[in-house]
Amino acid sequence: MQYSHAIELKVRDYECDQQAVVNNGVYQNYLEHARHEFLKSRGIDFAAVTGSGVNLVVTRAELDYRKSLVSGDLFRVRSLVRQASRVRFEFHQDIVRLPDETLMLTAKIIGTSLNQQGRPFVPELLRALFDEN
Amino acid sequence: MQYSHAIELKVRDYECDQQAVVNNGVYQNYLEHARHEFLKSRGIDFAAVTGSGVNLVVTRAELDYRKSLVSGDLFRVRSLVRQASRVRFEFHQDIVRLPDETLMLTAKIIGTSLNQQGRPFVPELLRALFDEN
Amino acid sequence: MQYSHAIELKVRDYECDQQAVVNNGVYQNYLEHARHEFLKSRGIDFAAVTGSGVNLVVTRAELDYRKSLVSGDLFRVRSLVRQASRVRFEFHQDIVRLPDETLMLTAKIIGTSLNQQGRPFVPELLRALFDEN
Amino acid sequence: MQYSHAIELKVRDYECDQQAVVNNGVYQNYLEHARHEFLKSRGIDFAAVTGSGVNLVVTRAELDYRKSLVSGDLFRVRSLVRQASRVRFEFHQDIVRLPDETLMLTAKIIGTSLNQQGRPFVPELLRALFDEN
Repeated sequence: MQYSHAIELKVRDYECDQQAVVNNGVYQNYLEHARHEFLKSRGIDFAAVTGSGVNLVVTRAELDYRKSLVSGDLFRVRSLVRQASRVRFEFHQDIVRLPDETLMLTAKIIGTSLNQQGRPFVPELLRALFDEN
Repeated sequence: MQYSHAIELKVRDYECDQQAVVNNGVYQNYLEHARHEFLKSRGIDFAAVTGSGVNLVVTRAELDYRKSLVSGDLFRVRSLVRQASRVRFEFHQDIVRLPDETLMLTAKIIGTSLNQQGRPFVPELLRALFDEN
Repeated sequence: MQYSHAIELKVRDYECDQQAVVNNGVYQNYLEHARHEFLKSRGIDFAAVTGSGVNLVVTRAELDYRKSLVSGDLFRVRSLVRQASRVRFEFHQDIVRLPDETLMLTAKIIGTSLNQQGRPFVPELLRALFDEN
Repeated sequence: MQYSHAIELKVRDYECDQQAVVNNGVYQNYLEHARHEFLKSRGIDFAAVTGSGVNLVVTRAELDYRKSLVSGDLFRVRSLVRQASRVRFEFHQDIVRLPDETLMLTAKIIGTSLNQQGRPFVPELLRALFDEN
């Protein structure tokens, strides 16, 4: 898959649980942060978009956990986005551990936008991103 | 669906983000807590199981977000578990807002157990739970 | 100390870290939730107050950690609030483990309100709470 | 103050609450991560130390909140550690926003080590750090 964007992060100890691995829920934090950084790199500020009355919402998340990140691990989160239907877009994301590039997690995050009447649509500002793939 | 277990929780303000709704990642926390409470109610202590060398791990999470919980909301998390394959089990969970019983989220959480050699299996202690459905 | 308010909570496994205890930062979550529940029980909704242009802010937090909560622990968070100066109020809070009533943590959380010009003041709506002590 | 160590981090949107600022509790996460990175930069791995039976614990945290970090902010966390008493050490830390170097928070985190009998002491491995100041 040809990803459009990547960021590198590092596991923080407070993200690890009693099993001494990154807690399952924390990966959604990593993925959200990566999506927002991806959008920001293309001039789309998530907070500003929300403020303008366009509500970007996640409708479905699919996460495949392959291996567990542990204390001190460096990792890369890669993202792309494409149109999924007339009113839905989907982000494909994965997490690879560094420096050995081991695949740790893959995810598909499906979303839509709600206008001020709560009607779903794909906002114009995302369309340019679909052509990157 | 006939759920085996339910707990009632309340949204805490620190769980809400700038969109003034519970952040998407927090639902995985609610679901994990509900699963561990479900297991505990059947005499299975997650921490003790981990300590005994049986590693219960999530391999896939599917979450369908329908509506957003907001500050102050009460809600119920319901859970059941069944065998998904020779080496996998799956929890079905949902979240309904109280008191109006609006469905907010449904989830399927697939997992396995790893023995000390890292080989997947379904531990005996979960089998009794499969017969509850 | 004569506390005005108490709530009972239970440790959730995702709140525990690799040392198998509740992570230090999580106690601030417990304390914030307890303060907001205290205010709500007196008719003061934190989200509504913020929306009305009165910004309640924490200016200093002092936490004394005595013992560590662990997986499965039940505990009570107790709170009172009093005026600390012309422009500051302070919450006194503690956490006791149940059912053995062991004192786990004491805290003093100092705050103020900022009006829309960013000027500190103690809002009228808190004054009734000071008389409870 | 002459700090021994600094790391640069960036606010993530999931760390912001309904007031559109970083939630008060999250600063303790930043500070803990900075302390662990500081220790690691001096060859002290927090997880390994814990595993070796030396339990580093926080006994008191004092945080002075001056200004609020918001979505997208870059910031630096600076740390030093010194001996506070025969059995206690204290970290002094602050957070400055970048690039304008505005002071956002100062903190003092007091801790001790517990040996396997639960007796407090200052471990030899920290002593070299005290001489850095």
